[in-house]
Parts: sequence; structure tokens; C-alpha cells
Amino acid sequence: MKETRYFYVPDAASATELPADEASHAVRVLRMKPGDEMVLMDGVGTFFKAEVAVASPHHCVYRVVEEMPQLPQWHGRYHIAMAPTKLMDRTEWMLEKVTEIGVDEVSLLNCDNSERRVAKPARLEKILVSAMKQSRKAWKPVLNDMAAFRKFVSEPRGGMKFIAHCYEEIPRTYLYDELCGRDVSEAVTVLIGPEGDFTPDEVRMAVDAGYVPVHLGQSRLRTETAAMVAVMMMHLSAGE
Amino acid sequence: MKETRYFYVPDAASATELPADEASHAVRVLRMKPGDEMVLMDGVGTFFKAEVAVASPHHCVYRVVEEMPQLPQWHGRYHIAMAPTKLMDRTEWMLEKVTEIGVDEVSLLNCDNSERRVAKPARLEKILVSAMKQSRKAWKPVLNDMAAFRKFVSEPRGGMKFIAHCYEEIPRTYLYDELCGRDVSEAVTVLIGPEGDFTPDEVRMAVDAGYVPVHLGQSRLRTETAAMVAVMMMHLSAGE
Repeated sequence: MKETRYFYVPDAASATELPADEASHAVRVLRMKPGDEMVLMDGVGTFFKAEVAVASPHHCVYRVVEEMPQLPQWHGRYHIAMAPTKLMDRTEWMLEKVTEIGVDEVSLLNCDNSERRVAKPARLEKILVSAMKQSRKAWKPVLNDMAAFRKFVSEPRGGMKFIAHCYEEIPRTYLYDELCGRDVSEAVTVLIGPEGDFTPDEVRMAVDAGYVPVHLGQSRLRTETAAMVAVMMMHLSAGE
Repeated sequence: MKETRYFYVPDAASATELPADEASHAVRVLRMKPGDEMVLMDGVGTFFKAEVAVASPHHCVYRVVEEMPQLPQWHGRYHIAMAPTKLMDRTEWMLEKVTEIGVDEVSLLNCDNSERRVAKPARLEKILVSAMKQSRKAWKPVLNDMAAFRKFVSEPRGGMKFIAHCYEEIPRTYLYDELCGRDVSEAVTVLIGPEGDFTPDEVRMAVDAGYVPVHLGQSRLRTETAAMVAVMMMHLSAGE
């Protein structure tokens, strides 16, 4: 049995050929030929069973055989907002893992203690797409451009909102307990700070904007681990 | 305020100087001098506040000031047994993360579909030690040498035992549900297969040996993600 090949085609329903990089991969690397089957995902909830109609080195025209919508695998809307790590591969790893586990939206924050204030969206998008394919999801997380912390927390945002921090002197509850009692259809946003944590000022600003201050349990976690643990908590607390 | 420096000294209570690599790091990299404070961890539950007595390029003699046992941060005993990934950095990443999140024992399995049948214990130990220091744990996970799957499952083992697999045709329950009802003092062992999964034969062999077949939820997870998710489930199901 031939392995099924997955391709990301944002406008799969209306388009008739693969985007350039996917076409090149299909034809030049995988050597796909007319009649070969493939699965397209549009990143917004639909798989398409398709077959190759025309294959040339730079083009791969396809014909859709069947449209297969994927039901959302969780309720609510999961949003993680994190200050990217000094070493970018840790943030990239986090993006891969939260996509596998399941997340709707990822925001990057520019904080007072941030050790990294720029990110390359194109590279991060590639990681999301690769993880989406690998974990067979028809939904691609939305990745937002880096935003200033102050701007981010001042934006209106529905659902439950949390800020994780490590200050013993600023009261915190346990995120998992907070999540367990919720209506699972509610949106959840969790903010994770940089390596040096949010500043007390930032925590206060978030609290004033309606974010509930939380901790993530007894273990001292790296930034990228904390983001992933928060996403796991969203799922497990909803019985998913 | 000077940053506290952590060193791993397996026999910290009886020894009087740092092991060679830690001594070199303390004296040559961190330029520690007599009188400087440090914290030693013995990997089996105790921190020692100490101060440098003698510092020479290859030796660092210390004097223990205070013994500070760390209470276990979770109940029971968490054991993850995983087939190492083809790309070793994925397994290394997993070791770092489960150490941060908290695990007692990690075993490496040699399975029918394994893409990697050798591992370098010395390198993996270094990762565990680094993660233990970073997450301020006085307990170091035990890392077992690679073992043949058949041998591993045939060994007597107390507590709850699970094997995660992806076969729709072999009945599975949800690991998190199984864990939620347990007596939290019970030991838990979860087996995670290689990239190509366990073979049906291996799953049957484990089931015959008392392992409960489970899945890890709706998402399709990579091997190393599955191992980490299983460890998260152990903690969250115990309310930790």
C-alpha cells in the first residue's frame, strides 16, 4: 500500500494546482504522477481527497475526488501567547508540540524581559504546517505577529484569560484547577512570560485587564515547557 | 545578589570535593573562589548548601553548611519506557521535558519497529542532570540501559502498567481516564512505541503480561510527544 501524501493548500476548494513549494515536493521529490492519490488540507477544517491530473517539474494540477470536513477535535478556542525564547529552536519546538497536541492560536509577545524581540514568521509558519500534516489535522493554528505586551493585554478578548508568573508575593491560583470548572465551550487564553518572567508591572497590568494570575504546578518549567503544559491543561481539563 | 550555582554531586554528603567536570565548570568557567556559596544536589532527594573551601583549576573542595532534603513533589513512582526516536535529538528533548515536568524512571526499549537500537547513556545522563539543575530538583530520574521489549515486559513490575498503541482493532481505553481513578500512591509505568508503533504481537505480549492497552486522546502524536503527554497525564490525574 502506497503511503498517503499530505499537502497544505490554503484555498484547496477553489484552486486547481498545488502551491509552488508543495508542487516541487510532490513532483520532484516524491515523483508523483498523474492518477496518484493525495490528500490536501486547507488549514481551516477540510481535507480533500484528490488525484494528480498533470505533473510537470514546477506544477502539479489536481482534481478533487472527495471533500472530507474534519470535526473540531476540541471545544472552545485555545490561545497561547508566549514571549519567544532566546534560543529560537526552543520556541520552534514549542510550536511543533502545541500544534500536535492541539491549539487554535499562538501569539508572540514582546515583554520587558524578553531576550528575543524578533521572529521570522515564514519559518515558524513552515513548522506549523509540517506539524499539522504530521498530526493529520485539517486545522492550522493561527500565528500572530509579535506584539508588544502592553498592546496585547489591552486588546478586548473574550473567554477566560490567564497570566502565568513565578512571583510568590503576587497571589496565584493553579491553572489546572481554574480550567477544570469551566464551560468547555469557552475560549481560553494563557500568557507565558520570557526566560526572566514577566515584570511585576506587567503582571499587574494584565490583572487590571482581567487576566487571572496563575501558576502551573510545583515544577519550575522553562518558558517553552510552560506553554506546552498550559495547552495540555486546556485539553485534559475538558476531558479531551 | 549573586546567582545561586547548582552542582550535581551524587555522594554530596560524604564527598568533600566536586566531581572533575563540575569542579572545572565551577573554577574555570564560573571563577568561583573560597567562601563562595553554592548548592549541591545529590540526585536522590537532598540539596546541600555549601561553600567553596579550596579552588584550584581541577579541584573544588567544599564545606557543607546545611542539608536541605526536598520532599518528593509527587506521589507514586512515574516510569516511562520509550523506544528512542530515529533522530536522537527528539529523544533528548523528551528526556529534558519529562525531567522538568517530573518523572522517576525512564527506560529505553528496543522494539521490532525501532529505527534506533543504540543510545549513548553518558550523553543522555548529561541532559538529565542539566534539566534537573535547571528545574531545581534534588531528584534525578533513573535512566535504564536500552532493553529488549520482550525482556522488559516479562520482568515483574508492580503498580499500574499501560501500553499505548495506535491499532483501531485492538481495544484501547483512554490513559487519562484510567489514571484518574487510581490510588495516587501507586506506581505507574507507560510504554510508548517507536515511530512505526509497536507490532500487534508486541501489544499482545504486553497485554498478556498485565499491561492495559491505552490511547492518548484524539491527536496523532509523535513518539517523543506521546511520552511527554503520558507523563503530564500522570501528574494532572493526581491533582498535582
